[in-house]
Amino acid sequence: MKTLEEVLKGIRGADETAIEEAQKYMDCLIKPLGSLGKLEAMAVKMAGITGKIKNSVEKKCSIVMVADNGVCAEGVAGTPQDITLIQGMNMTKGICGMGVLSAHAGADIKVVDVGIMSDYNNDKVYNRKIKYGTDNFAKGPAMTREEAIRAIEIGIEMVEIAVSEGYQLIGTGEMGIGNTSSTSAVFMAMTGESAERAVGKGGGLTDEALIHKKQIITEAIKQNKPDPKDPVDVVSKVGGLDIAGLAGCFLGAAYFRVPIVIDGVISALSAYVAAQMNPLVKDFIFSSHKSKEPVYDLIFKELEMEPFLDMDMRLGEGTGCVLAFPIISAACAVMNMATFDDIKYDQSYRIDIRK
Amino acid sequence: MKTLEEVLKGIRGADETAIEEAQKYMDCLIKPLGSLGKLEAMAVKMAGITGKIKNSVEKKCSIVMVADNGVCAEGVAGTPQDITLIQGMNMTKGICGMGVLSAHAGADIKVVDVGIMSDYNNDKVYNRKIKYGTDNFAKGPAMTREEAIRAIEIGIEMVEIAVSEGYQLIGTGEMGIGNTSSTSAVFMAMTGESAERAVGKGGGLTDEALIHKKQIITEAIKQNKPDPKDPVDVVSKVGGLDIAGLAGCFLGAAYFRVPIVIDGVISALSAYVAAQMNPLVKDFIFSSHKSKEPVYDLIFKELEMEPFLDMDMRLGEGTGCVLAFPIISAACAVMNMATFDDIKYDQSYRIDIRK
Repeated sequence: MKTLEEVLKGIRGADETAIEEAQKYMDCLIKPLGSLGKLEAMAVKMAGITGKIKNSVEKKCSIVMVADNGVCAEGVAGTPQDITLIQGMNMTKGICGMGVLSAHAGADIKVVDVGIMSDYNNDKVYNRKIKYGTDNFAKGPAMTREEAIRAIEIGIEMVEIAVSEGYQLIGTGEMGIGNTSSTSAVFMAMTGESAERAVGKGGGLTDEALIHKKQIITEAIKQNKPDPKDPVDVVSKVGGLDIAGLAGCFLGAAYFRVPIVIDGVISALSAYVAAQMNPLVKDFIFSSHKSKEPVYDLIFKELEMEPFLDMDMRLGEGTGCVLAFPIISAACAVMNMATFDDIKYDQSYRIDIRK
Repeated sequence: MKTLEEVLKGIRGADETAIEEAQKYMDCLIKPLGSLGKLEAMAVKMAGITGKIKNSVEKKCSIVMVADNGVCAEGVAGTPQDITLIQGMNMTKGICGMGVLSAHAGADIKVVDVGIMSDYNNDKVYNRKIKYGTDNFAKGPAMTREEAIRAIEIGIEMVEIAVSEGYQLIGTGEMGIGNTSSTSAVFMAMTGESAERAVGKGGGLTDEALIHKKQIITEAIKQNKPDPKDPVDVVSKVGGLDIAGLAGCFLGAAYFRVPIVIDGVISALSAYVAAQMNPLVKDFIFSSHKSKEPVYDLIFKELEMEPFLDMDMRLGEGTGCVLAFPIISAACAVMNMATFDDIKYDQSYRIDIRK
């Protein structure tokens, strides 16, 4: 099992030679230059990850980090906490949204307990429980620095497992009532963004409860004084175990050179945390769907990425990744087109529409 | 083979009982109400089309209408006309963008010649050639009313063939150099929209050539005087055989009750033409990706629909539909989730986030 330190030092960015060759090859395919838009960019990005011009995605899975959040005691979530456990378990049975959509996409799910607040009997779950939910960050730090690092390393380990099993594309999901609070808190602490802009209704809140949620988060940051320049400090003080675990997945994907997909707002924040620890991580990340949670757009602006699916979805669990899998896979298939050299072809079709 | 008249009279709208039952069932699934956004709407719409609450999409194909446009003589297109034939043929060989993306999606392609300007030797093409390209609508009508009706009926016939072969989802593609000109012309003639807002660069034009394209189209409408209230008159005077053929596909899909997907701007305009002939057609149409051609947004506003994929693609051919197929299919899979009644479940998770 790799340590966080090893991984942070061992990450290399995209294979620039492969990217250059892939772009050259892309521009020889029988279509107006740039006419397949984001599919072209995805196919080229994939080459930078694998080092190969032609890629395919046969085996894919999602890593779903499940953990509880102590801050729920403050009434920041509209849903009772035991749903974390119930949905975590349902995900192993294939009967929830993530289950049916993954089955449809031919993708597997790895459910990881990094901090569910209760025990259970389910050998399909990767039991990596660090503690029974975070502590309430309205009263003190959510976890220790050591616990945060352990959660990150579990994320790295899960990617290592997935890669060793032959998975070629990894989605990122989460289940944790209260985790839009920790997500907004981490982003605000790292960027100085205001609660007004960065806190939303999550799974569903009244207007009054939203005001309360903003106050709790703003106060928690003031009280815990996380160091904006130290992502691990921020995540341990006002974050969550799911966020730390997913940040580890993004770091692990970069280290093991496998493409990884952002889902909703918690996953996006985790990618941002990972990218703050090592910016090369971004070379390995694909976006998926747009979230309505307000902090999502702010995070994506920082990541300099944009989503390509607009589904009005807010189920979480990793469902957006799973919808994106066939699109990313289709991007790889673009490289199977004929080139202008393969066939006698009127080169004038090669008009450049990228301007 | 059905006549246009029979089809226009025979179209019934969505099965409202099935829609109501599907929505009720959707709201019993173990997720916050509305949390799967557009996937939920698609699954419910599908029920309205088939009359069944649970649906699946095993067999899908695209109908690609290929035809030349006489108005190319005016220099409105940046690509030489023989690309229509070449790409039409390539589409039967699976080596172009549409070919590789369809293969990836497990979808078939039916290439239909409704008006390629030359002959060829390819028995994979449905040869339904009406004429060797339209006449130049800058000099007079593009085709006769009878020819337009014949092209529409070919579209209806193609859907009948697809349905008889067991296809459960139909995409709409086209290949025809010059067809963004006919598309803008038809929309402007039917709505009174200006060239300034409704004419774009299509496959690629200089700024100067764009000004020229706008003038040609504006003049053609003035000269041909199409009747805005008579879609067939408009399509015959300033439209194209591909547009007429695709309009027929949308009408046919409504008549034979099969879901049909809009691709880019030509396909969208054809759906609009069909909906102007019988508004119930809209109950059978799914959107796919966003086009950058300016008239696209105007058409979608009229259709009261919105795309869900934003890929910066402008290859046409039907490529956007093919990317949307797995999303629409995934929407059907949502109905396989467990219900709150299936399992002992905390009903509080059923929080309504649709407000």
